[in-house]
Amino acid sequence: MSTRVDVIGIDADDTLWHNETLFSVTHDRFAELLADHVDTDELLQRMLETERRNLQLFGYGAKGFTLSMIETALAVTNGDLPGAHVQAILDLGKALLSHPVDLLDGVRDAIESIADRRLVLITKGDLFHQETKVAGSGLGSYFERIEIVSEKDEATYRKVLADLGVEPEHFLMVGNALRSDVLPVVSIGGRAVHVPYEVDWAHELVPEADLPTEGWWRLPTLALLPGLLTEIEA
Amino acid sequence: MSTRVDVIGIDADDTLWHNETLFSVTHDRFAELLADHVDTDELLQRMLETERRNLQLFGYGAKGFTLSMIETALAVTNGDLPGAHVQAILDLGKALLSHPVDLLDGVRDAIESIADRRLVLITKGDLFHQETKVAGSGLGSYFERIEIVSEKDEATYRKVLADLGVEPEHFLMVGNALRSDVLPVVSIGGRAVHVPYEVDWAHELVPEADLPTEGWWRLPTLALLPGLLTEIEA
Repeated sequence: MSTRVDVIGIDADDTLWHNETLFSVTHDRFAELLADHVDTDELLQRMLETERRNLQLFGYGAKGFTLSMIETALAVTNGDLPGAHVQAILDLGKALLSHPVDLLDGVRDAIESIADRRLVLITKGDLFHQETKVAGSGLGSYFERIEIVSEKDEATYRKVLADLGVEPEHFLMVGNALRSDVLPVVSIGGRAVHVPYEVDWAHELVPEADLPTEGWWRLPTLALLPGLLTEIEA
Repeated sequence: MSTRVDVIGIDADDTLWHNETLFSVTHDRFAELLADHVDTDELLQRMLETERRNLQLFGYGAKGFTLSMIETALAVTNGDLPGAHVQAILDLGKALLSHPVDLLDGVRDAIESIADRRLVLITKGDLFHQETKVAGSGLGSYFERIEIVSEKDEATYRKVLADLGVEPEHFLMVGNALRSDVLPVVSIGGRAVHVPYEVDWAHELVPEADLPTEGWWRLPTLALLPGLLTEIEA
């Protein structure tokens, strides 16, 4: 039995364009900057703790990430942080915010080949920065809506689907994050496609045992999405 | 001739709850912190310049504001900024983000008395922080939609009105900012109510000569909105 897909939701960071690799490069430079004070592993562990502690206040995105880098740097240096280092961290944050959008391989062709469908971009993060990235991607016009949300949970997907006037069984979500793009969508009766990114984000890891047994697929690249859609609807 | 108001858009910061006064208090503390290095007027001028320069990168909101405070502090101290000062600025930013929502006088009654209408909250700023404030305000349930936008210009209002399925002539926007809440709405054929806040925001000032001659009203307090609606539709 096949069920029609009426609307396709597509994640942005690490699904359409590179993001986590940029953060990885930033982490590396951050570690170099503080190499005299703390080793890399400890710094990144402390940074992860700072980010987790600040998530309730900052949400997701590069500005909160930059503030957390400054806070972590102050902590590991016991407050003895040269102004030049603070400036260097600010500059790392600005570089993240102003970095050109770098599409993943095959993404433009994949999106163009399903452009006759109802596509919705659904992404977490900083409103202003995400809109800037959508504009820079050149893909904005393929999407009926751009939904920038503060959290991708069941309630968020229910609201977005209601706004779109689509039932969960006719909605398919595509993204690199099991926790944000797959689990909540399958939970509310939708379907999902997991397209893992080359680097995993520590906040988004899910034990295999917690994965649903059906309602989702995994593809190595978005380039295979058009073919999968044909199969799903056959 | 009267024209029916079908949907009322309402701004949030400084229209429903205090915001600019919090930023003013933060400015004061920021100036005290750097009093040994720079006088208040010069600091606030430098801060305004930093904010304007960063607006394209940061957008609006408390996180970008905090990053701009740190950048300004580094500039006015020629990079010789003690770690404790950086931490103090981070703490000022966190205090802004975690400050309880403080409704303006009369707001709750005014909103309750028009709760049978289609109300939409339309606000600029940081997605995550604005959602937190809406939740903290206890007013969220009165609104059909919460629209957090990166810029309040004609294109944004056209898109929001299209989503709501309302023609501009049946839309009324209420807010404290002439540039964001009044001018673009009147320009696209809607109507607007200006409710000035006790403190003006330097980015939002508009010369009187640039104001439209009709299509908008000015009220000293939101408490008078229900009465004005009755008059408009009489």
